[in-house]
Amino acid sequence: MDEMKKLVAKEALKFVEDGMVVGLGTGSTTAHFIRLLGKLVMEEELEIYGIPTSYQAKFLAIESGIPVVSLDEVDAIDIAVDGADEVDPNLNLIKGRGAALTMEKIIDYRAGTFIVLVDESKLVDYLGQKMPVPIEVIPSAWRVIAEEIEVFNATAELRMGIKKDGPIVTDNGNFILDAKFERIEDPLDMEIELNNIPGVVENGIFADIADVVLVGTKEGVKKMER
Amino acid sequence: MDEMKKLVAKEALKFVEDGMVVGLGTGSTTAHFIRLLGKLVMEEELEIYGIPTSYQAKFLAIESGIPVVSLDEVDAIDIAVDGADEVDPNLNLIKGRGAALTMEKIIDYRAGTFIVLVDESKLVDYLGQKMPVPIEVIPSAWRVIAEEIEVFNATAELRMGIKKDGPIVTDNGNFILDAKFERIEDPLDMEIELNNIPGVVENGIFADIADVVLVGTKEGVKKMER
Amino acid sequence: MDEMKKLVAKEALKFVEDGMVVGLGTGSTTAHFIRLLGKLVMEEELEIYGIPTSYQAKFLAIESGIPVVSLDEVDAIDIAVDGADEVDPNLNLIKGRGAALTMEKIIDYRAGTFIVLVDESKLVDYLGQKMPVPIEVIPSAWRVIAEEIEVFNATAELRMGIKKDGPIVTDNGNFILDAKFERIEDPLDMEIELNNIPGVVENGIFADIADVVLVGTKEGVKKMER
Amino acid sequence: MDEMKKLVAKEALKFVEDGMVVGLGTGSTTAHFIRLLGKLVMEEELEIYGIPTSYQAKFLAIESGIPVVSLDEVDAIDIAVDGADEVDPNLNLIKGRGAALTMEKIIDYRAGTFIVLVDESKLVDYLGQKMPVPIEVIPSAWRVIAEEIEVFNATAELRMGIKKDGPIVTDNGNFILDAKFERIEDPLDMEIELNNIPGVVENGIFADIADVVLVGTKEGVKKMER
Repeated sequence: MDEMKKLVAKEALKFVEDGMVVGLGTGSTTAHFIRLLGKLVMEEELEIYGIPTSYQAKFLAIESGIPVVSLDEVDAIDIAVDGADEVDPNLNLIKGRGAALTMEKIIDYRAGTFIVLVDESKLVDYLGQKMPVPIEVIPSAWRVIAEEIEVFNATAELRMGIKKDGPIVTDNGNFILDAKFERIEDPLDMEIELNNIPGVVENGIFADIADVVLVGTKEGVKKMER
Repeated sequence: MDEMKKLVAKEALKFVEDGMVVGLGTGSTTAHFIRLLGKLVMEEELEIYGIPTSYQAKFLAIESGIPVVSLDEVDAIDIAVDGADEVDPNLNLIKGRGAALTMEKIIDYRAGTFIVLVDESKLVDYLGQKMPVPIEVIPSAWRVIAEEIEVFNATAELRMGIKKDGPIVTDNGNFILDAKFERIEDPLDMEIELNNIPGVVENGIFADIADVVLVGTKEGVKKMER
Repeated sequence: MDEMKKLVAKEALKFVEDGMVVGLGTGSTTAHFIRLLGKLVMEEELEIYGIPTSYQAKFLAIESGIPVVSLDEVDAIDIAVDGADEVDPNLNLIKGRGAALTMEKIIDYRAGTFIVLVDESKLVDYLGQKMPVPIEVIPSAWRVIAEEIEVFNATAELRMGIKKDGPIVTDNGNFILDAKFERIEDPLDMEIELNNIPGVVENGIFADIADVVLVGTKEGVKKMER
Repeated sequence: MDEMKKLVAKEALKFVEDGMVVGLGTGSTTAHFIRLLGKLVMEEELEIYGIPTSYQAKFLAIESGIPVVSLDEVDAIDIAVDGADEVDPNLNLIKGRGAALTMEKIIDYRAGTFIVLVDESKLVDYLGQKMPVPIEVIPSAWRVIAEEIEVFNATAELRMGIKKDGPIVTDNGNFILDAKFERIEDPLDMEIELNNIPGVVENGIFADIADVVLVGTKEGVKKMER
């Protein structure tokens, strides 16, 4: 499993060129990518800047020797490399198991090329098949939002902490609702619907935005493109 | 001017009934309402609970003797009383000059009856005529969002503090962009469009949601309804 | 174990009187207390107000039927009931495993009587014997603070999340450093020293402040007092 | 006045050497320093990194062409350059009128050399002579802290916003209490006392830490050293 993740991460390296600004995703597969990228940057003395999507990605990038910048310092993001919890046949995604979905969306949507790294267990027939949609919400509104989401035939749970009592808190100071849908028929429409609920900061549906999905399989890395 | 605000606030009191949960808006006109409501609650020994939309509203409610609750504690909000920066003939609003728009939207949209208090200077032919649309954004994304808003023929400025160096920070820890539009043709559509920009937490267009607007005029209080 | 916690929680109920404002701690033993308090309030129709020290305590109090208030609404806290990770023979405490130490300190230090609920496994000869001292820090300063703490013969680790990638974030939006000391000779002095490091918001040493410690043992509830 | 500030800022430039990491303060005098530093960096192609103490300083540094880094990325801060609201004859300071005191203290206290830029109106006989001490506090605790500060013969006011209704919110999401003291006899002692109040994040007394104060006077720049 870990080997497969490394293979996918290695494949993603091929998209990197000298001088690029690279969005750095959150999660275990992209962690491999960040470490490999750091090695490449040092060995080949590339001038690469990383824009992290979370504290996790930031700390890992610094450790790996990749200079980090913020959106305030760059004119454009050339590529973004990130993971996903589900990928449907049209390359629509569910993201947010690591609770970093808002910064991920901020970065990934602005990248020239958005590359997704997953293993084959993440491929689904339709969004919502296996995983809930994480939704970042203003803390005081979590309960009403959880109720209102039932309109979409979904049930939402407040994500609780393990090494922290009470709900987990995101890097932005908000809560995460995990909303389990029956089946999301129209991802783009549902993404917009959820964003429009007052108190929703961002949601984990990433519709119509991934350019390339690299899938780790037992037979090697498979490439899906739009 | 202050007299006119008080008259409007007094008119709003007529919507309050014993046992109600009342959303308490932010701003100078609603401040009058909160004080009057506190007086009424004490004099008539009403059982009223206030849900404040900001620290300002919370502190004022406590001072005025209104017990405050949060969305976690109530099943429904009976009425919400709030101000506005602009009101168009269809009762669409721009709100957010006080930087409390996100909590205001969270509360106002869930109220059984949403009552808006303004003076006649706030009435406009179309939204965007006089005032910018305040947009609450995740701090790291402000610059890209400001650029992207130009697509809508708008120019956006980061709101700067006066008794604080640098940008003002909202009660939720975010920034405010003030986006000046030429003319907002379709408020509901624009509200959805803005919410869908990654990094936008909420925006100050309140379309299709106000039930009653009470307008202070030199000839007395005028009532607009949908 | 759970039975022992319930016994201790029950004993704490004896400190509660009608009309009191009660600080509500965070953690599993105080969770029992909150539930029992809710039952008591309902059965005996007491007028009790709870001040929660965390989202966890707040949600539990509401569920249990205890009206919650904030420090903005009360003149005094009569008693506070909270847990601890370590208790030394002088009733000095280490707290913060649930990451709620700042709000706990804000509430507990202001209570007329501060009552601590633990089982006997929490009794130690000196602070630091078993547990690290959790320290809440401003995120950007965590690394320098972790280094500076070595002066005190301690090693500090950034607490990482489990259902969130990267570090856990507190209800106040900060990080937690878990600092393992050899032995804390003078708890009051160390509490002040740690608070004085720039970037430290609060630390988990609660010296000279607990009034009563109720200890669950196999032989029943033991009471320690200052 | 503005000319005097520029002269002082220019004098501070003499402390900068190629390869340094420079803490960048908040406020109008340091703003001049940041702009001049940016010019120097470009003209002489220096390799300088800036660590900003606020969003204001960060945005200005980026605009001025100074690469910015965070405490996570550097091993040491060579110098920090910042302003002050009051300077006593022993170089003790009050800072925080710009509400950035916590990050300023985090950076300034860790600098090899801490240089303060003021005009002569900031020189006082003792701290508290003219200005209040800004204290950053956890929002829910502001009222109790304001009361407790009266023990020190001080009166504290919650700082209110101007382009935001209700209290100003700091870059860390907290409130500012402005505490007016009669006279602060022992600044180091008072700094520690204030930090030890539960709910106080940091306070604006910077005792025993400034290395150099550059004072703009009508007769030119005066240099005070410890």
